[in-house]
Amino acid sequence: MGSRWPEGRSRGHPTRLQGTERPHHPPRGLGPSRLSRGGRVGGGAWRAGAGPAAGAQLPGRGLRDLLGRGLGWDPAGAMELLSALSLGELALSFSRVPLFPVFDLSYFIVSILYLKYEPGAVELSRRHPLASWLCAMLHCFGSYILADLLLGEPLIDYFSNNSSVLLASAVWYLIFFCPLDLFYKCVCFLPVKLIFVAMKEVVRVRKIAVGIHHAHHHYHHGWFVMIATGWVKGSGVALMSKFEQLLRGVWKPETNEILHMSFPTKASLYGAILFTLQQTRWLPVSKASLTFIFTVFMVSCKVFLTATHSHGSPFDVLEGYICPVLFGAAWGDDHYHDNHGGSHGGSHGGGGPGSPHSALPAKSKEELSEGSRKKKTKKAD
Amino acid sequence: MGSRWPEGRSRGHPTRLQGTERPHHPPRGLGPSRLSRGGRVGGGAWRAGAGPAAGAQLPGRGLRDLLGRGLGWDPAGAMELLSALSLGELALSFSRVPLFPVFDLSYFIVSILYLKYEPGAVELSRRHPLASWLCAMLHCFGSYILADLLLGEPLIDYFSNNSSVLLASAVWYLIFFCPLDLFYKCVCFLPVKLIFVAMKEVVRVRKIAVGIHHAHHHYHHGWFVMIATGWVKGSGVALMSKFEQLLRGVWKPETNEILHMSFPTKASLYGAILFTLQQTRWLPVSKASLTFIFTVFMVSCKVFLTATHSHGSPFDVLEGYICPVLFGAAWGDDHYHDNHGGSHGGSHGGGGPGSPHSALPAKSKEELSEGSRKKKTKKAD
Amino acid sequence: MGSRWPEGRSRGHPTRLQGTERPHHPPRGLGPSRLSRGGRVGGGAWRAGAGPAAGAQLPGRGLRDLLGRGLGWDPAGAMELLSALSLGELALSFSRVPLFPVFDLSYFIVSILYLKYEPGAVELSRRHPLASWLCAMLHCFGSYILADLLLGEPLIDYFSNNSSVLLASAVWYLIFFCPLDLFYKCVCFLPVKLIFVAMKEVVRVRKIAVGIHHAHHHYHHGWFVMIATGWVKGSGVALMSKFEQLLRGVWKPETNEILHMSFPTKASLYGAILFTLQQTRWLPVSKASLTFIFTVFMVSCKVFLTATHSHGSPFDVLEGYICPVLFGAAWGDDHYHDNHGGSHGGSHGGGGPGSPHSALPAKSKEELSEGSRKKKTKKAD
Repeated sequence: MGSRWPEGRSRGHPTRLQGTERPHHPPRGLGPSRLSRGGRVGGGAWRAGAGPAAGAQLPGRGLRDLLGRGLGWDPAGAMELLSALSLGELALSFSRVPLFPVFDLSYFIVSILYLKYEPGAVELSRRHPLASWLCAMLHCFGSYILADLLLGEPLIDYFSNNSSVLLASAVWYLIFFCPLDLFYKCVCFLPVKLIFVAMKEVVRVRKIAVGIHHAHHHYHHGWFVMIATGWVKGSGVALMSKFEQLLRGVWKPETNEILHMSFPTKASLYGAILFTLQQTRWLPVSKASLTFIFTVFMVSCKVFLTATHSHGSPFDVLEGYICPVLFGAAWGDDHYHDNHGGSHGGSHGGGGPGSPHSALPAKSKEELSEGSRKKKTKKAD
Repeated sequence: MGSRWPEGRSRGHPTRLQGTERPHHPPRGLGPSRLSRGGRVGGGAWRAGAGPAAGAQLPGRGLRDLLGRGLGWDPAGAMELLSALSLGELALSFSRVPLFPVFDLSYFIVSILYLKYEPGAVELSRRHPLASWLCAMLHCFGSYILADLLLGEPLIDYFSNNSSVLLASAVWYLIFFCPLDLFYKCVCFLPVKLIFVAMKEVVRVRKIAVGIHHAHHHYHHGWFVMIATGWVKGSGVALMSKFEQLLRGVWKPETNEILHMSFPTKASLYGAILFTLQQTRWLPVSKASLTFIFTVFMVSCKVFLTATHSHGSPFDVLEGYICPVLFGAAWGDDHYHDNHGGSHGGSHGGGGPGSPHSALPAKSKEELSEGSRKKKTKKAD
Repeated sequence: MGSRWPEGRSRGHPTRLQGTERPHHPPRGLGPSRLSRGGRVGGGAWRAGAGPAAGAQLPGRGLRDLLGRGLGWDPAGAMELLSALSLGELALSFSRVPLFPVFDLSYFIVSILYLKYEPGAVELSRRHPLASWLCAMLHCFGSYILADLLLGEPLIDYFSNNSSVLLASAVWYLIFFCPLDLFYKCVCFLPVKLIFVAMKEVVRVRKIAVGIHHAHHHYHHGWFVMIATGWVKGSGVALMSKFEQLLRGVWKPETNEILHMSFPTKASLYGAILFTLQQTRWLPVSKASLTFIFTVFMVSCKVFLTATHSHGSPFDVLEGYICPVLFGAAWGDDHYHDNHGGSHGGSHGGGGPGSPHSALPAKSKEELSEGSRKKKTKKAD
């Protein structure tokens, strides 16, 4: 089952990468046979795309209760539910759904939507359209660029996918320059947006899985390489947001995505760890099943967070227990509060000898408010 | 004709790249047979180098009139002129002129001259010679570094060209440390400088053509890859100016080359699009002819702009018509004024819903003046 | 002798790199036969590691006198001493000492110690453990990342060394989170720290040598490539300190390691030049001997500088003579004072024509004090 996995989105089959230098014309996207197997891309994939979202809505009440009570996750209940739906079969057919035209479109729409939410992005698009277009491309393809950088491949490798780049450019144009802002108003309508957000998460999870498969092909025992590749593939532009901001003439050095991780970045990291465990046979579950379960989890969380305009994270409770144990009990409650957007921080961080921590306490308040402001603007990237 | 094109400056013939991993001793620069064909490098190339410049001066009056009337470009008149000179033959012999010692020297001289124009560059060279030398190398070889980064090749690949690096280092030393500033004063003498500026444009256009040929070899249908590679090959250090400034301890995040494109950067972008169209057979013209025509255009514009200390751009008129249509009529005149170094901007940029553009209008004035100041310092990079 | 050199730490033997695409399971670290040859890694290497340090202490009085008199270096005396110890034999057996568990451990300890000295690093580790861990990894493996970037290899290539990464992570955890700060207090105890510092220099010198060997394999005549690779391999995180600071939310653009080189960065540059001369047969000495001599030099200097909390550099005297001759006599004493942490600078830097140096003199004082403060915090990186 795992062997035919990453055909949908991978850059040519990795085993074929070995023989030749680099596949110049990889069968990216969908070959004809792929299309005939996936069938009815337009409508079919939409329905298939709506499937997981509907599946996430199905246990909606229970999930909302669970998430309400500290955003936890009950694997036992989910497994029960999924086995009732005959998980294996469902996951397998889910893994066959092609991503290219519809799911990728949703990914582009949501990504560029969050670019438009950034302060000053609209003015930028009017006065410097090229810079705005470049930012949009980073929002759409940042994960590929970062993964290529880590794995030593050409940074613009993915831009040889003309159809993807043209699709993303069309979305950028419609979102920023559509007359009367019609397109923007349509995709911002909450029910529509929630569907797009759900579909974006489907793409994100598959990118993590494919990224780890790709890294595993290069480094069979490179655990850290696999996790890093999966992480950057899942996080996308968030990890290169400093560079993206610089392109727009914005510079806020006192914070970054590593210091104040948003939910998708954190979930991508945990997902990358899970997929790496699966890839190295430590997690006794098929890749299709793990992808399906993790997709359901991500879609539910993200749709819930977007619908409720919440900035929390389901991991806060877990981290509130683990971090104090691992990284110092004295700072535990500080860390806990910080994760909940706390307002006091670092005031009692008496460091070890030799650490003249002069600068930090003075600006930590500003830094925190900066971080929380950032969380608000990109609440559901 | 196209097949023997990029011998002059390419990194070994691309077709030879395929067989081996990487050519360790590519016949860079000029082999003996190449020299005998090109003949009389020192004097001959000088005369050949002066050729296009003289050719640009030949229709000087007409061109100056044209440029004076909105910096336009009349292709019909140019074609007529060139056909009278039997374009094909001229272009072909022009494409055979080797670049290495003389044209490259001009490129280095003009590039390092503009480094010396930067505020603080002279103090830097006295107090931190190594940093100054590194900046000079970025100014001379930035385009190769960026293109290598994009195409996944070693960043310091070009630095294995010992002769080029030594030549650039000698130019750096003479410009910054020559007794009585003799060398600097000589190359700054306007007629001399105009010749060097003209020869730099010859190198720039050929770098764009070779870059696109190189990218095309890797990605046969990668339109965006070709355009990007050609662009960075033509723009050079401008696109990495943030990094170069950081090396000198200067940091101005509120502006960058993408936001305020100088004429060479913009011309490189348009040139890269033209050469990509030629490479993919959409533009029915030979590469030698296109190179020749575009070189004449660049040389004329750049010499005119340098001679008149103008900061305008021949593209302003065209963009003033196209941008309002494509990117919103309401902001059209704003954009138009901005391109002419306007002082008001973004004051009426009422963005779409969800874009709290608080920071930008406050600093846009400063940003614009920053941008125009920058334009002044690097008026003819 | 040179042929079996870089087995200890190189990424697979370079000659084996040629045949395959990339060695997925290179015999990194120590194979069993290597262990049996090196023998008794734990204790043996410790004793071997203490060897050069003891050797540096042996001529301690003479050296201290020499260093006291302007931090000079008397090669004649050293050669005499070394020939008495039968240099060739000693160097050869020294080159056979494996680095992996013990010397690398010292490298990690000292590197992460200097991370902990940075202002705010302790708070960072409490509130953002992942960012702190990433910084620690950059401190330990920054040289590999930079060299991979320059040579076009995957940036995270070295992170496939699971054992090294786990060892560095353990050191990071112990230094930052050990109960009662016991581990930190132990390794900060001056005699213990001096041993670790000495062993770190052993690793540094070997990394320079291996880096140049590696670059020479790719570019046989690439002098600049070899020097650059050796330099970044020796300097490590220092050359990417801007990026590392940004990760911690710190941004000081007005200074950088190139502008204010610390002793290890400078010594790595000079060492890289020496090793490049050796590699290209211009320096008639075996690689093992050069490594041994340079290691003794680095260990002595670094141990002396650390023990005396000095921020000077043995190169200051030499540079005070050479720089005024090469880079302008008028600024010679300025440069000399600057190297000694002088307080006045750039006040009489009347640049050439066309350089409106407005910004620099105003902030040069701040810049200098910034630089000297930085020197203090990372006095013995």
